[in-house]
Amino acid sequence: MEVEQVLHMNGGIGEASYANNSLVQQKVISLTRPIREEAITSLYYKKIPRTLSIADLGCSSGPNTFFVVTEIIKAIENLCRELNQNSPEYNVFMNDLPGNDFNNIFRSLDSFKQNLMISNNNKFEKNSCGPCFLFGAPGSFYGRLFANKSIHFVHASYSLQWLSKVPEGIENNKGNIYMSSTSPLNVLNAYYEQFRRDFSFFLKCRGEEVVEGGVMVLTFLGRRSDDPSSKECCYIWELMAAALNQMVLEGIIKEEQMDAFNIPQYTPSPSEVKLEVESEGSFTINRLEVSEVNWNAFENNWNAMDFESEESESLSDGGYNVAQCMRAVAEPLLVSHFGEDIIEYVFSRYQKLLTDRMSKEKTKFFNVTVSLTRNA
Amino acid sequence: MEVEQVLHMNGGIGEASYANNSLVQQKVISLTRPIREEAITSLYYKKIPRTLSIADLGCSSGPNTFFVVTEIIKAIENLCRELNQNSPEYNVFMNDLPGNDFNNIFRSLDSFKQNLMISNNNKFEKNSCGPCFLFGAPGSFYGRLFANKSIHFVHASYSLQWLSKVPEGIENNKGNIYMSSTSPLNVLNAYYEQFRRDFSFFLKCRGEEVVEGGVMVLTFLGRRSDDPSSKECCYIWELMAAALNQMVLEGIIKEEQMDAFNIPQYTPSPSEVKLEVESEGSFTINRLEVSEVNWNAFENNWNAMDFESEESESLSDGGYNVAQCMRAVAEPLLVSHFGEDIIEYVFSRYQKLLTDRMSKEKTKFFNVTVSLTRNA
Repeated sequence: MEVEQVLHMNGGIGEASYANNSLVQQKVISLTRPIREEAITSLYYKKIPRTLSIADLGCSSGPNTFFVVTEIIKAIENLCRELNQNSPEYNVFMNDLPGNDFNNIFRSLDSFKQNLMISNNNKFEKNSCGPCFLFGAPGSFYGRLFANKSIHFVHASYSLQWLSKVPEGIENNKGNIYMSSTSPLNVLNAYYEQFRRDFSFFLKCRGEEVVEGGVMVLTFLGRRSDDPSSKECCYIWELMAAALNQMVLEGIIKEEQMDAFNIPQYTPSPSEVKLEVESEGSFTINRLEVSEVNWNAFENNWNAMDFESEESESLSDGGYNVAQCMRAVAEPLLVSHFGEDIIEYVFSRYQKLLTDRMSKEKTKFFNVTVSLTRNA
Repeated sequence: MEVEQVLHMNGGIGEASYANNSLVQQKVISLTRPIREEAITSLYYKKIPRTLSIADLGCSSGPNTFFVVTEIIKAIENLCRELNQNSPEYNVFMNDLPGNDFNNIFRSLDSFKQNLMISNNNKFEKNSCGPCFLFGAPGSFYGRLFANKSIHFVHASYSLQWLSKVPEGIENNKGNIYMSSTSPLNVLNAYYEQFRRDFSFFLKCRGEEVVEGGVMVLTFLGRRSDDPSSKECCYIWELMAAALNQMVLEGIIKEEQMDAFNIPQYTPSPSEVKLEVESEGSFTINRLEVSEVNWNAFENNWNAMDFESEESESLSDGGYNVAQCMRAVAEPLLVSHFGEDIIEYVFSRYQKLLTDRMSKEKTKFFNVTVSLTRNA
């Protein structure tokens, strides 16, 4: 089954993962803000467009879905005021797979538009923002989504590490569910080649859609190391594989089933991202950075006021938090492959392994953020 | 409560009404096809656009949601072939209130795209259509939905007779729920003024959004007569009022409740539509026609092959068919005002009244279709 189909079964990774992933994602959004602001400023100074089209790729559906888009529009409104220009019109395209809960996004349309009218000094100002038109854009970003030269700003956070499918020819990745230090070389190569094909095609599609001088800011779940099987990116899945392997030993899961299960993800290094951008050729890199977030997002000391989360006091039990976070991401894939019955067993074992590991070392996710400009 | 809020409660009139209204709407789509084809041809010859943006306003959500859009795109593809031009790219904007079931629309995206690849001789041809990008555009069409000069073709069928709200100052429309031959003059005037305000604002908004030379084809549920309280448009609601009045007599509904209930609709005549278009000034009328559809859509001798309906043999019990059709439209409004408990009672009485009336005369809906071009 294609990854897209699996993700559809559970309303898309976006929706399912949102509740528990949100703290991690919020921290990432906060860390990458300066890069977005720099990209927006450079775009605006170059183009001063009458209509500005923004696309959020893999937007998911949750209480903070509009957070980045709102921030981008407010940044542009500030630039308009600084330069004494009229506000542009905004087209905002929210993209995710067709199985995403777009109804939920659209039902928040009013509050999104009201938020745009609240200025930086927290006053509601009726004319503080240009007209904003919001659209749902269903489809895979590994394919064309928009007309030629129709988009000015593309944002994607924590969506591009998902491959279009599980790489082929990795049947010998026994005992593993992702790349790992024990994966055969052909498995590492197959994962990398799938990433190259997918990301290169992504760049080609966006190259056709983004106007000259338009910008993209993309954040991958990735790694700092050049080693694709580095613990930085693989260990979180190795612990899940350990939970599944326990269940193979206990006879709950068949060995063949375990061997045939692999996660359709690739967590690239900055140099791998750079290489693909340069060889595809549509975009030029302005900035390429790595940032880090704790597995347990409650340890990240993020500014709770930014997001009004009710969970912000729940700092305890990192293992539980991370297991929930990963459950939201992995459950549709696990259910599709192993069926529903094993899920509770997997995650209770996984949580114990996570708690144990996190008590012994500081565990982190690594984010690769790249800011790109469409070449002339 | 604003009408929009009420309609949201039940997923929008579009969605709720679809199942039962679909036969009437299909007949209307079929009747108005020549007007759309003429408009598309004239648009294409004038513009030959590289990217063509189509908006379907009040698209609802059902198995035939894509029917008109598919037809429009295929008509353009035929023109491209005739003129030996490359296919354009298509932006397709599906609009309805934010409470509409857009998830359902998006889940049919694949079959929509596949249908586009089936040529007129029923062969699947991979390159038989230019790239098509589909978007959900949530919001009221009594307001701006799209950026300035961004739309080439606007279609709306059976949505514009809905007003933005119940007219004010019609407390004396006692015993009625819509305009009727017994409505006081101020009630008829209030309805007409609300129509004028709403339709005029609709034209102003679309005037900003539609490119010069762009076209709109709008079909209202309307009337042929100049009399706004004509049976042509009012009788279907008078029978529902009769059902409610019976229940007032039986003590099931309070008289004050009945008096305070009015339907937010206006069924205009061709000359009223013409007057508003001319006085607003953004568009020129190419064509203005009235067509008729039987209340009982099963009597319309429509071509069942066009729509593959399983219901096409159910020609019996017109009263039941029409009651179901009207139930889908009116239920959210009735529930919001009277509560859920009375619904079955209302519609059993209404069905009897409809069956009786339809046994005595040929009852029809009247459609006003106008084709418009955006002035230079």
